[in-house]
Amino acid sequence: MFDLARARRIKLLGFDVDGVLTDNAVFIGEVGGQRVEFKRFDIQDGLAHTILKGNDIAVAWISGRQSAATSMRGQELGVADVLQVPSTEKVAAIEALLARHGLGWDEMAFVGDDFADLPVFEKVGLAIAVANARDEVKRVAHHVTEASGGHGAVREVIERLLKSRGSYEASVARYLGREAWTG
Amino acid sequence: MFDLARARRIKLLGFDVDGVLTDNAVFIGEVGGQRVEFKRFDIQDGLAHTILKGNDIAVAWISGRQSAATSMRGQELGVADVLQVPSTEKVAAIEALLARHGLGWDEMAFVGDDFADLPVFEKVGLAIAVANARDEVKRVAHHVTEASGGHGAVREVIERLLKSRGSYEASVARYLGREAWTG
Amino acid sequence: MFDLARARRIKLLGFDVDGVLTDNAVFIGEVGGQRVEFKRFDIQDGLAHTILKGNDIAVAWISGRQSAATSMRGQELGVADVLQVPSTEKVAAIEALLARHGLGWDEMAFVGDDFADLPVFEKVGLAIAVANARDEVKRVAHHVTEASGGHGAVREVIERLLKSRGSYEASVARYLGREAWTG
Amino acid sequence: MFDLARARRIKLLGFDVDGVLTDNAVFIGEVGGQRVEFKRFDIQDGLAHTILKGNDIAVAWISGRQSAATSMRGQELGVADVLQVPSTEKVAAIEALLARHGLGWDEMAFVGDDFADLPVFEKVGLAIAVANARDEVKRVAHHVTEASGGHGAVREVIERLLKSRGSYEASVARYLGREAWTG
Repeated sequence: MFDLARARRIKLLGFDVDGVLTDNAVFIGEVGGQRVEFKRFDIQDGLAHTILKGNDIAVAWISGRQSAATSMRGQELGVADVLQVPSTEKVAAIEALLARHGLGWDEMAFVGDDFADLPVFEKVGLAIAVANARDEVKRVAHHVTEASGGHGAVREVIERLLKSRGSYEASVARYLGREAWTG
Repeated sequence: MFDLARARRIKLLGFDVDGVLTDNAVFIGEVGGQRVEFKRFDIQDGLAHTILKGNDIAVAWISGRQSAATSMRGQELGVADVLQVPSTEKVAAIEALLARHGLGWDEMAFVGDDFADLPVFEKVGLAIAVANARDEVKRVAHHVTEASGGHGAVREVIERLLKSRGSYEASVARYLGREAWTG
Repeated sequence: MFDLARARRIKLLGFDVDGVLTDNAVFIGEVGGQRVEFKRFDIQDGLAHTILKGNDIAVAWISGRQSAATSMRGQELGVADVLQVPSTEKVAAIEALLARHGLGWDEMAFVGDDFADLPVFEKVGLAIAVANARDEVKRVAHHVTEASGGHGAVREVIERLLKSRGSYEASVARYLGREAWTG
Repeated sequence: MFDLARARRIKLLGFDVDGVLTDNAVFIGEVGGQRVEFKRFDIQDGLAHTILKGNDIAVAWISGRQSAATSMRGQELGVADVLQVPSTEKVAAIEALLARHGLGWDEMAFVGDDFADLPVFEKVGLAIAVANARDEVKRVAHHVTEASGGHGAVREVIERLLKSRGSYEASVARYLGREAWTG
């Protein structure tokens, strides 16, 4: 469980992409004379995005790398804000995002794995490191996931966040089109 | 072994795709300005589809996601019914499929891994969760596989189903073009 | 170590492809309206093919599946015979191959993982199952590798075969362009 | 930690590519009638390349295989020297590279995994084998990494090298745009 006071304040849930929504791998090759890049996303993480809907928690992906793979996967999961900016500009990009949503840093949770996420961790209300994060990142996180990036870490974060807020069962029931649900 | 009474009634074997026929991964990239998606299928699962033939058990793949990768793999394995419908419509799509085959829910086995498969599990005669299924899905399954999706779960299901019905050796012999076989 | 008498007779080393030279995965997707298939090969296996050269042992790949990926990888490793025939025709295809080389079954080693390889195992002088082979295949093999297909099994087979014949050190020395080598 | 005397002399850090910057896999397929090859690179390794900058240590990738995937990944990480030459020419290619940089073999560290790297290991000031290297390669290395190629080995090497030289904290601080940093 997350710290309840922190979890209940969250209105924006941000994810780093590489190492969090993926296993940190990038598949690179040349097709027809053009550079092509694939990333490996997890279907169970995608379903979690659907379960989260209706909880009044916005989702944003914030990556330090520009990649069409990220844009396309974010779009198909209905992520309104997919920010791909140089790592050194992550904090400024999130500041602007929070302003647009009319939110403060303490109303944001962020999930990351590497040094580029450290400046964000120092500011957000709930900082979550994935199991495969660098030790230095885990050390300053409020919470470390059991699952690794690309292998269920995002699913775990969303499930725990909703459970901490007491809205998990209702969210799954809504997903299943039912009045109530007990797992 | 599966429950013998349940296994012997089965005339339709349904598989969810992502997480069952794959390891839940989807590889996304952009090629020539177009979104491209790859999925990872297992060759030993494919051979199981061949061994199953001649047992008077129809196979259907039922996915909550539209993907050309799924269509193409289903086609090359000779799966007559590859249904790709929104998760909330899985039950209705299977109802129609059963009607077309003139079968009842108790004559169907279904293999799944995630919440979208729960409504199907509640209706089928034999509900099988893969090793990597969500706990809530395993809890309501009649059987949980040892192998994970994309790493032999489908092979295991088909082998167990045929062994429960006493027709495994004959099926392998037929595959090998022999009169009899003992593994 | 392999059985020395068997190993010393070998003049043709045959490999099944899926599950032996790969981890049994096939990555399927659609690019520009066309079906595309990728396979994952291991670089250390490739180097083993080079080390084997000069030992008067021919190499053949025999697959039950047609795939451009297999043809291209075989070509770049200098494999003269890449046979891609229906599984039921593997034995006949190898008969023809042996005739072309003027060899008998006892002069051939074969590495396989699944049922389709069983009829070949019954005939060859040295039958080798990879670590990830089906139990029924391991049971009738003369030898089972420690490494899995796509993760060094082929490298292991070639190393053991050359060591059993006492020509490993000389082969590596030749690869390194040296007069002698001790690992 | 690396041997301090050796580590402090290093002005050129060379990496073999397959098995060191990747997990030794090559994904091969045919797209539009053309051979296409993908490789899997690790994002955390990429960040390490950025952290290394400003330490007066040049980076070179030296591969025994020609691959557009390698060229493209090297370019995006700002690696000035990406040499792709036959394995037997690695030593000569590095000799030329060292001459161009005005450096001696003892000022170079090299990270490798397979036999082709042995002639280089015998010459460099600091020879590092990855965890997945062949035993014969590990045996002659000055150091063996804990992480495997494609799964953090490069990140580990760069971190250890900078720590051995006492410049790790300053390098990370520079990366984070800060005056100081303690992990």
